[in-house]
Amino acid sequence: MSLTIKLHHVNSTTTQAHTTKIKKSNYTTKFHSKPIYHSNLLTPIVQFERKIQPLSQKSSKNSLMVKSSLIEPDGGALVNLFVPESQRELKFSEAEAMAKVKLTKIDLEWVHVISEGWANPLKGFMREDEYLQSLHFNCLRMKDGSLVNMSLPIVLAIDDEVKEKIGGSESVALVGPNGDLVAILKSIEIYKHNKEERIARTWGTTAPGLPYVEEVITPAGNWLIGGDLEVLKPIKYNDGLDHYRLSPQQLRNEFDKREADAVFAFQLRNPVHNGHALLMNDTRRRLLEMGYKNPILLLHPLGGFTKADDVPLDVRMEQHSKVLEDGVLDPETTIVAIFPSPMHYAGPTEVQWHAKARINAGANFYIVGRDPAGMGHPTEKRDLYDPDHGKKVLSMAPGLEKLNILPFRVAAYDTVEKKMAFFDPSRAKDFLFISGTKMRTYARTGENPPDGFMCPGGWEVLVKYYESLQAEVSMQKQTVTA
Amino acid sequence: MSLTIKLHHVNSTTTQAHTTKIKKSNYTTKFHSKPIYHSNLLTPIVQFERKIQPLSQKSSKNSLMVKSSLIEPDGGALVNLFVPESQRELKFSEAEAMAKVKLTKIDLEWVHVISEGWANPLKGFMREDEYLQSLHFNCLRMKDGSLVNMSLPIVLAIDDEVKEKIGGSESVALVGPNGDLVAILKSIEIYKHNKEERIARTWGTTAPGLPYVEEVITPAGNWLIGGDLEVLKPIKYNDGLDHYRLSPQQLRNEFDKREADAVFAFQLRNPVHNGHALLMNDTRRRLLEMGYKNPILLLHPLGGFTKADDVPLDVRMEQHSKVLEDGVLDPETTIVAIFPSPMHYAGPTEVQWHAKARINAGANFYIVGRDPAGMGHPTEKRDLYDPDHGKKVLSMAPGLEKLNILPFRVAAYDTVEKKMAFFDPSRAKDFLFISGTKMRTYARTGENPPDGFMCPGGWEVLVKYYESLQAEVSMQKQTVTA
Repeated sequence: MSLTIKLHHVNSTTTQAHTTKIKKSNYTTKFHSKPIYHSNLLTPIVQFERKIQPLSQKSSKNSLMVKSSLIEPDGGALVNLFVPESQRELKFSEAEAMAKVKLTKIDLEWVHVISEGWANPLKGFMREDEYLQSLHFNCLRMKDGSLVNMSLPIVLAIDDEVKEKIGGSESVALVGPNGDLVAILKSIEIYKHNKEERIARTWGTTAPGLPYVEEVITPAGNWLIGGDLEVLKPIKYNDGLDHYRLSPQQLRNEFDKREADAVFAFQLRNPVHNGHALLMNDTRRRLLEMGYKNPILLLHPLGGFTKADDVPLDVRMEQHSKVLEDGVLDPETTIVAIFPSPMHYAGPTEVQWHAKARINAGANFYIVGRDPAGMGHPTEKRDLYDPDHGKKVLSMAPGLEKLNILPFRVAAYDTVEKKMAFFDPSRAKDFLFISGTKMRTYARTGENPPDGFMCPGGWEVLVKYYESLQAEVSMQKQTVTA
Repeated sequence: MSLTIKLHHVNSTTTQAHTTKIKKSNYTTKFHSKPIYHSNLLTPIVQFERKIQPLSQKSSKNSLMVKSSLIEPDGGALVNLFVPESQRELKFSEAEAMAKVKLTKIDLEWVHVISEGWANPLKGFMREDEYLQSLHFNCLRMKDGSLVNMSLPIVLAIDDEVKEKIGGSESVALVGPNGDLVAILKSIEIYKHNKEERIARTWGTTAPGLPYVEEVITPAGNWLIGGDLEVLKPIKYNDGLDHYRLSPQQLRNEFDKREADAVFAFQLRNPVHNGHALLMNDTRRRLLEMGYKNPILLLHPLGGFTKADDVPLDVRMEQHSKVLEDGVLDPETTIVAIFPSPMHYAGPTEVQWHAKARINAGANFYIVGRDPAGMGHPTEKRDLYDPDHGKKVLSMAPGLEKLNILPFRVAAYDTVEKKMAFFDPSRAKDFLFISGTKMRTYARTGENPPDGFMCPGGWEVLVKYYESLQAEVSMQKQTVTA
């Protein structure tokens, strides 16, 4: 059965809430793994090391009867920022009359993210109080005094001219890149966009060449506008992949329908190879051992802005489909969906966002590897972040205590067993680390990687993509020469 | 009665713990004040605006019977990191045999700070887990899950050579700038000192010219060494000001002895003028109005590293003494002591440290003004921080909920009343803002500031200081010419 068909069947109205026990655990972690370098195409492969108590030993005391098996969204219920059908026309005409703020493609991705509750309990672009808490504390204080994690500033920038046009208005209309009215931003607050401070505190560097900074922040205006969103209609991309874009509520409904008692999320922005699959299957095995009856994998590729040398979303989605078709991952216990957020490549700061957003979609286990959301330093010959900091920071982050963080060991190609396997330091020389550069070289030159590195169907997708890239480059060269 | 005499009488053994009610309050704040520019010599003057409920209305429900009237130190009891007299000789000879780490003058200030519990519950220089939490969250998680504020990384740097000498040792000896054995650092952990990331996340900029960065971080080694401190003997400076250096425990004893039921702390690194005094006296009046019987002011000048153009500590202490001698502040309800921390000039990040450290000394009210711990941007013509961010960030900071933050309105010289007064926007033209530059010009040229700006005794101290500076400059010029 192909995944695509399965996903078409997701139905947000059929799920019945059912009473069951919610399981909470909160324990400290010890990390023993040594950093091993990887490239930007090959995410690290892992096996979780933290000792997790079997379910039977930890249940009774902290159990709580709730109407779902799934972890609660941050801040309680999922926000719903869509204008009801009945009011849509009215709101559209109200929006028409308002001062307009033009959104970039990436601004629109954030509207999408906020509107569906990925950033729960955020109800719109951040006002200054939220922005400052995010920047300084990576978390927001709720009215009851509790903290929710919020590590990235989710903000909308405007320039002097737009600010002047807005004047003293209380609301503005947000206009998509194609000119469509997208949303209303209410009870607005305009405050200074100190780009230097935002960049320094988010990335821990101000070096030129950070992809999100160059693409989004540097060209943006010197003001930020916060407020509450009223979204006029669901955000669609019409790229043939919209059916993969399940909202947190749709995912929760699907998990409920499948009677998942554990959901483990795997964030990725790269092709899936057999090392990833090993890890994901091993995680499921361990969750079953712990006493969970039906752990479901959320294979959750990031779908928003990525840097130019990452594999594009459509290619990745095709590759992921093949991985499920080829039976490397089990479609019965796997949901593939697109996470609509753009990438910041902000390492330890961003991995918190990646984990937090999945809580809102119902995931109570989060798999984290080496150097999550990391990249090379833009101006120095080193990783931008210490590759161990991501999982350390994640495991200590305020507001993420309810999430089970699963760090993992590195996997590599075992030349004796001829398959991807967890790296065994006692016979290190048997293991081959296939870097992203190496993998791209294979794909580009038409050479096959070692047997068992990636399922043949998935590999073919990559080979085709790199062939098409080369064809494009040759075309460009010819054009220049001509 | 002079302040100096009073302080000599502080006796850490006489205080009797007495049972009384501890008052806790935790409320959100609205800030209405507009930023008004000040200079680096003239700190802002203020009046607190937050509506604080009278004591009688907020007491019963959250009351707690404890053996002190004072706010609890962060994390419970104050740490005591001094080696007992009886073990001192033994520890000295143990330390002699250990690998040595040479401390800079500023490292030693941090040993002082940690050893007395200003950074409670920190027991030594930060290990990596603490460092990362401080850098990313401005707070540390305690074993019971609660958070304490910890916004500045308190770390000790070593270079490659020292790291190699330490090898696999579990402990090292710390040696003061003058060659004396100062402390042992136990159960050490050595980790990378990513200076760029530390600077970016602490200051929100990596621009060259930050005083602490240039003085401390740039010349420091590429490794940080964390561990538990065993301090061999109290840190003394022998500068004639040691009697002002009261530890948090000594301050608590003094507050207890005076039966303080509220302690309000005023952090400063500048001379006190009558605007400051107005604010402090007004704060006391308001605390009395709220129902406190004996609010005590902790006038708490910072005594560690400051930048070159700040007024030096000895001049400031002399100036503060005159302010009390002249009766501008009441010696009966004021304690002047030196806060031994070095300055970072890290604005919203550092103001949290300034407030948090005073909790450990027993202060439950903290006065915060415009642009606390701020300075000019080192390379651009603007303040480094938004002048309102300090108090906003402070009021939202995790781990500081138990502290009452008192933001204040700006004061200026009222040319009609001929005194420093809270600025009244309805007759703005009557007010004169005397900037630091202006004040220095007065002092340098021997011109007197308007009557009522500063008490004559305090002013004289400044005039003399600037005269001596000018004499020095002339001397240097003559030397160069000769």
